[in-house]
Amino acid sequence: MQSQLDDAGGLRHLVTLEGLARDLLTAILDRAESYRRLPGQPAYEGRELAGVTVANLFFEPSTRTRASFDLAARRLGAQVVNLDMHSSSRAKGETMLDTIYTLEAMNADVFVIRDSEAGLPEYLIDHVAPHVSVISAGEAHLSHPTQGLLDVMTIRSHKRPFAGLKVAIVGDIRHSRVARSTARALATLGTTDLRVVAPESLLPAEGEFRGAQRFTRIEDGIAGADVVMMLRIQKERMAESAALDDAAYFRSYGLTAARLRLAAPDALVMHPGPMNRGVEISSDVADGPNSVIREQVNNGVAVRMAVLAAITATLTRHRRPL
Amino acid sequence: MQSQLDDAGGLRHLVTLEGLARDLLTAILDRAESYRRLPGQPAYEGRELAGVTVANLFFEPSTRTRASFDLAARRLGAQVVNLDMHSSSRAKGETMLDTIYTLEAMNADVFVIRDSEAGLPEYLIDHVAPHVSVISAGEAHLSHPTQGLLDVMTIRSHKRPFAGLKVAIVGDIRHSRVARSTARALATLGTTDLRVVAPESLLPAEGEFRGAQRFTRIEDGIAGADVVMMLRIQKERMAESAALDDAAYFRSYGLTAARLRLAAPDALVMHPGPMNRGVEISSDVADGPNSVIREQVNNGVAVRMAVLAAITATLTRHRRPL
Amino acid sequence: MQSQLDDAGGLRHLVTLEGLARDLLTAILDRAESYRRLPGQPAYEGRELAGVTVANLFFEPSTRTRASFDLAARRLGAQVVNLDMHSSSRAKGETMLDTIYTLEAMNADVFVIRDSEAGLPEYLIDHVAPHVSVISAGEAHLSHPTQGLLDVMTIRSHKRPFAGLKVAIVGDIRHSRVARSTARALATLGTTDLRVVAPESLLPAEGEFRGAQRFTRIEDGIAGADVVMMLRIQKERMAESAALDDAAYFRSYGLTAARLRLAAPDALVMHPGPMNRGVEISSDVADGPNSVIREQVNNGVAVRMAVLAAITATLTRHRRPL
Repeated sequence: MQSQLDDAGGLRHLVTLEGLARDLLTAILDRAESYRRLPGQPAYEGRELAGVTVANLFFEPSTRTRASFDLAARRLGAQVVNLDMHSSSRAKGETMLDTIYTLEAMNADVFVIRDSEAGLPEYLIDHVAPHVSVISAGEAHLSHPTQGLLDVMTIRSHKRPFAGLKVAIVGDIRHSRVARSTARALATLGTTDLRVVAPESLLPAEGEFRGAQRFTRIEDGIAGADVVMMLRIQKERMAESAALDDAAYFRSYGLTAARLRLAAPDALVMHPGPMNRGVEISSDVADGPNSVIREQVNNGVAVRMAVLAAITATLTRHRRPL
Repeated sequence: MQSQLDDAGGLRHLVTLEGLARDLLTAILDRAESYRRLPGQPAYEGRELAGVTVANLFFEPSTRTRASFDLAARRLGAQVVNLDMHSSSRAKGETMLDTIYTLEAMNADVFVIRDSEAGLPEYLIDHVAPHVSVISAGEAHLSHPTQGLLDVMTIRSHKRPFAGLKVAIVGDIRHSRVARSTARALATLGTTDLRVVAPESLLPAEGEFRGAQRFTRIEDGIAGADVVMMLRIQKERMAESAALDDAAYFRSYGLTAARLRLAAPDALVMHPGPMNRGVEISSDVADGPNSVIREQVNNGVAVRMAVLAAITATLTRHRRPL
Repeated sequence: MQSQLDDAGGLRHLVTLEGLARDLLTAILDRAESYRRLPGQPAYEGRELAGVTVANLFFEPSTRTRASFDLAARRLGAQVVNLDMHSSSRAKGETMLDTIYTLEAMNADVFVIRDSEAGLPEYLIDHVAPHVSVISAGEAHLSHPTQGLLDVMTIRSHKRPFAGLKVAIVGDIRHSRVARSTARALATLGTTDLRVVAPESLLPAEGEFRGAQRFTRIEDGIAGADVVMMLRIQKERMAESAALDDAAYFRSYGLTAARLRLAAPDALVMHPGPMNRGVEISSDVADGPNSVIREQVNNGVAVRMAVLAAITATLTRHRRPL
């Protein structure tokens, strides 16, 4: 895969957090903070993306993430086209490139792509024109970079520095792109105490999540944690035989108020959504004082604005002159 | 249900016309008139909703009403997100709240909701943040407040005062949210002579439409009427056994030119659309000189703009400071 | 059908290129050139359509053409409503008019319509109000006027004059609205040497494409051609018995580098997209130095902007005064 940065070190694509430096991540988070508006405040409206066309290509349905990218782009003045890419009619590889080239010929500049299969974002990076950017909005179980960024943005507004933090991620780690991207962002920012907590069958393969401690008992995994990040059970990514009974899962791994008391007293409770209340998390914890789940969503729009603005600034240097 | 007004008496939600005062309705209609542009005139474009994000959540398919709300919001400068809420994947109650809270965390301010089932709008009003508004775009057979408003807006531009008017609503009253909201608006504005006209099985239950006269013969019901409002047969709301043969219905209840002569000579013919021509109304009447059916649609955009503008003015007082 | 021009000769509708004068076509192409921006240049953003509402009514799915019209309208400042018209629920004739009248009552001014069946655009032209325009985005096998315009726009930026050009159209001519509209545009601009190349069963009926030479061998048809325009095999328009095996079709009619050498050395290779690589065209030709396929897409947005701007200028004269 070609670099996600241009020769001047500007962010041109964002399909993975692997290989991105701490300074770059921090710059994105700082910019995101300038865009953040709390619920009830008027949304930031700017012109950073004026003259830019963003094409959302979602091969997986996603109301939330798509709305987040859509609003982020439009609040910065972009034109947005939303294209439903049905799996059945899906074009791969070279044919998919024809779709990209077609939209590029309509002066689309930024492609936001979500795909349940692996490989498309990297393939596109290697083939698009110098004035075109690719952002992954979720790729298979591998990568969800803006989610990783919004997670660390949420953590750092409550807890610093990253170096001393104890972070537990609980749930279906094996199939989770969120876990992978968030773990990567945390490592880049200096967190060394990461715990992955799941039933044996949902723990990651050996060699993944290097340096993380592995737990099969949630009580052990979240003990003393500063951050407890619960994941949604991803039934659509599991073989049927691996599917778990909701009630049994909740008994063994659900985050309840009682279990949360094992973590640090001011531990943050996080969840990428959508939640299955009563499966991986109880409602009183989801809505309780430790929960920053809605802050994550709020930060999500701000992070996507920051990524779009950073990429647009880079693209501007690669524009064809009029 | 919490009040639809805030402490200062400003309109904060609109899910039913029940309990709203005549002055408030009149103020909305007056404002709507300032937004109305006739077909062929350039649409009003303003900034009353600048910085506001409107989320359209339609659990029922609706090309017309959705387009009307969408255009109303965008013509006043709002950002609009349209979300298809499929019945199959529909989230109810607490889970539905998660969707609302998620969009609220993306700085969505106004939720426009259409649902074939009852209860969601009221439930949401009791749970959303002080800086969030809920507008019903149709709730089960119960309420369709903007339709009620556009109907009385249309009537008052031709006939005044409301006190002396004879209004007949003809068709499937039992299953009609339009009939309920329009009857409510008429009563609030002073109309006392309301007739509901339908086959016995489609008349409302006893106790509903208080004060209205009930007719099973259309000839009796529309005699001398100043307004004849025809309803669409709502097959999707009827038990199959109650479904009627189109031709038989037309013979007994269809509004023909001959029947229209029983009403006042300058009677208004209205229909909320979409029409079933040749079922509840003949084409010559639908397109004839008494018809104000297209005016209703035209007023619909204006009324929705006025409701959105009034609600935004109220919300502004409840915004969090920057 | 009523005229597509108003009394002052301004373009009011565009459903066919038949009957439009060379000067009018040339004026549209000149205007389109002023709107064209190359990929990598910021898109043109203007206010020519400020206050105008464009309704896209697509009865056939079309990601590309719809995106092209959508972007064209929004880049000129229009409000756009996209309506999915499902074939199953499709309303025809008088009922379809109700939909148009409803949107017109919402102050929609321009209707962009794509339909797999014939007749709707002409029907609408005869029935809409004086301040409403109809643009066809593809009608059955009959007409696709903006495609015809973008094709000649692409040709004239490389080859002039039209009078001396040899143009070969290869593929499923019989079912192709592209071929009909492009042939019409070429004839209007002065091209006399047109060749239609297809297996016997896919050649047009006698009496169509008057003046064109007919070929069943591609080698004969493209010999010496200045322009080779390949068409997509339109399986959805063929009776099943007529469907062809992809590999066999490629052997007999696919445009390969070897075959392209039979054309003029600087021949343009064109395709309206989406391409079936390896069926009607080989990848090396599609991506080769003679290919102007992406230029066609780029010109497509510009042509649609020019058509929308020209029509809006005409409509302005027919607006109702405020």
